[in-house]
Amino acid sequence: MPVYADPVDGRALSAAALTSWTATLVERMGTPSDIAADVAIVLVAADRRGIASHGTARLPRYATLVEAGAVDAAARPALVRSRSAVALYDAGNGWGHHAARVATDAAIEGAREAGVFTAVVRNSNHYGIAGWYALRAADAGLIGVSLTNSSPLVAPTRGVVAMLGSNPIAAAAPAGRHDHFCLDMATSTVPRGRLEVAARRGEALLPGWALDAEGRPTCDPMAALKGALMPLGGTEEDGGYKGYGLTLLVDILTGILGGGTPGPLISPLFAPGAVGSDITQTVIVIDPDAFLVPGAFAVGMERELDLLMAAGTAPDAPGRVLIPGEPETAAERRSEAHGIVIDAAHFQSLRYLADRWDVPLPESQPVPREGPGSQR
Amino acid sequence: MPVYADPVDGRALSAAALTSWTATLVERMGTPSDIAADVAIVLVAADRRGIASHGTARLPRYATLVEAGAVDAAARPALVRSRSAVALYDAGNGWGHHAARVATDAAIEGAREAGVFTAVVRNSNHYGIAGWYALRAADAGLIGVSLTNSSPLVAPTRGVVAMLGSNPIAAAAPAGRHDHFCLDMATSTVPRGRLEVAARRGEALLPGWALDAEGRPTCDPMAALKGALMPLGGTEEDGGYKGYGLTLLVDILTGILGGGTPGPLISPLFAPGAVGSDITQTVIVIDPDAFLVPGAFAVGMERELDLLMAAGTAPDAPGRVLIPGEPETAAERRSEAHGIVIDAAHFQSLRYLADRWDVPLPESQPVPREGPGSQR
Repeated sequence: MPVYADPVDGRALSAAALTSWTATLVERMGTPSDIAADVAIVLVAADRRGIASHGTARLPRYATLVEAGAVDAAARPALVRSRSAVALYDAGNGWGHHAARVATDAAIEGAREAGVFTAVVRNSNHYGIAGWYALRAADAGLIGVSLTNSSPLVAPTRGVVAMLGSNPIAAAAPAGRHDHFCLDMATSTVPRGRLEVAARRGEALLPGWALDAEGRPTCDPMAALKGALMPLGGTEEDGGYKGYGLTLLVDILTGILGGGTPGPLISPLFAPGAVGSDITQTVIVIDPDAFLVPGAFAVGMERELDLLMAAGTAPDAPGRVLIPGEPETAAERRSEAHGIVIDAAHFQSLRYLADRWDVPLPESQPVPREGPGSQR
Repeated sequence: MPVYADPVDGRALSAAALTSWTATLVERMGTPSDIAADVAIVLVAADRRGIASHGTARLPRYATLVEAGAVDAAARPALVRSRSAVALYDAGNGWGHHAARVATDAAIEGAREAGVFTAVVRNSNHYGIAGWYALRAADAGLIGVSLTNSSPLVAPTRGVVAMLGSNPIAAAAPAGRHDHFCLDMATSTVPRGRLEVAARRGEALLPGWALDAEGRPTCDPMAALKGALMPLGGTEEDGGYKGYGLTLLVDILTGILGGGTPGPLISPLFAPGAVGSDITQTVIVIDPDAFLVPGAFAVGMERELDLLMAAGTAPDAPGRVLIPGEPETAAERRSEAHGIVIDAAHFQSLRYLADRWDVPLPESQPVPREGPGSQR
């Protein structure tokens, strides 16, 4: 739902070609090919789903971290502790995408046995869109929940400075003849990228989005970029303490449960000086067939989503009631049909990487300015 | 945090005496004594924690439901299905407080073995404050998550009418020398009770709280009471689709996972005509010692909460940064020291029940109008 159009001289690339190019590039950085394949699939999934902020646009910063030795491109996750329905991994400061994929697969296998399984990965790095891991469980017919902490961007309610990450909560579930339900939300009101877009366009922010450097609510994007995001809900009076509570809950279920660095002490995102961000990810998988006869959960999901999609709409509604994940699935279909659309700055950064690592970019086509949006 | 003062000719009662009176009253309605004890403990816990809307103030409506045969006061939960880390119960349309307590205890025991355990109770009824079950896990040294669906109060983003409950998310964790972390939040911006208070006081609502009967945002509490609550975040632009997503996620993890009635089809709360509300509750318990050496989780929690409590505060902040659960724990301490304070209307309703069921009310003292608040 938060997908918004921001096409500036966009170019379209095939998803398959972009995935293969990304994998080769990541391999050139010293990454074993199976790990590089995971990184490429997760990053391009973000681009395919219209979440450009979490896709291949991050490759230049990942490359900087690997070259600076802040991420170990060859590290493999190691099992630290386990019980019949839980496992803790240490990612060895390697690629988060791979470590979290391994943990997700363990949770999927474990949930089929125990009914529910929780896998935690500490000493990890940024893992792309949280929703990808939840969707992997949904693809396997299971319910998936995916959480990560991250470097501070959000001020706690009443606080001045950013102390907690925008710590996303993602959850996905198969829904029979409908596409998967997939909620993938930062626990801040808006992502930081939204402030950057407003600053670029000279637009005012809405109240409840951000604080300035002194901790005062501000609608000025430039002031907000020097301040902090507000948690979901906005001010204390509007219910922002709930968003703050959710942000903190995610930190508890990731960094604290996994014995990693707590949110307030995680170094700034993509700071090349930092040696390892020690981010922690948690994946919880539940097997509906442990509770209901096979097929019953899908029938229940279909009935629920049917009711919501047929609901009467408010006078100013831009369309019918949406199911979380629908806009992203629609973007995925557009990407399949017309290629992934990325904007000019993004394309330039990939071209730079292509030259720098000597991996020629795949073919691309220009997209008219009014084309499908690719950013959020 | 959402506790607010609304003292109108309040009276103070001892928590122990109110618990014992409530248990006796519930027994008179045909409830076995062990079940009545659970109901009393959970209801009075809400009063002790300053959440009067979910405590003994609901007893008159519970009594009406039991007398109408809409709740089976003697029913005991039965295990329907289980695997090593999950269990599904059918509450038999009995007291939700008891069924969910039984499920919570099973989840606590199961998590100590498997590391994580998920218990679901369908065919249940209102279970009081969601936080009580999460706190029971925290009291046992574990992380608890407690979810329930409920009758429709919240309109989905873009929708006109209420289709989903205010479906709370509660989570609690032990925090070493600090009090337990306890987030207990409706996934609507505000509870419906807040609209009722505004109507009584003639106050305007804040934008983003509610819709009128035509689905238009309104700040008029009378119009809002005929309409629907908005999900956490408010309008679609402000991030309300995230609150809607959370509300729907809770419905998926409760009613749909448990094979109960889906949220949009649950009958209105406390409607005496309905035969069984078929609410579903889910409790997830995680044992931190399955991940970390004993004691390490508490040390991590202490460090995190220390950092937040010492954070610099915004210019207009009414005090330091709070930890979710702190205001309720403070209310609990006030209740221990000075008794539970309930307002005049609440007291009258208990007096009516005392007469109706011939269970004399315990001693109470008048509280000055400026006394500690008891409502939210």
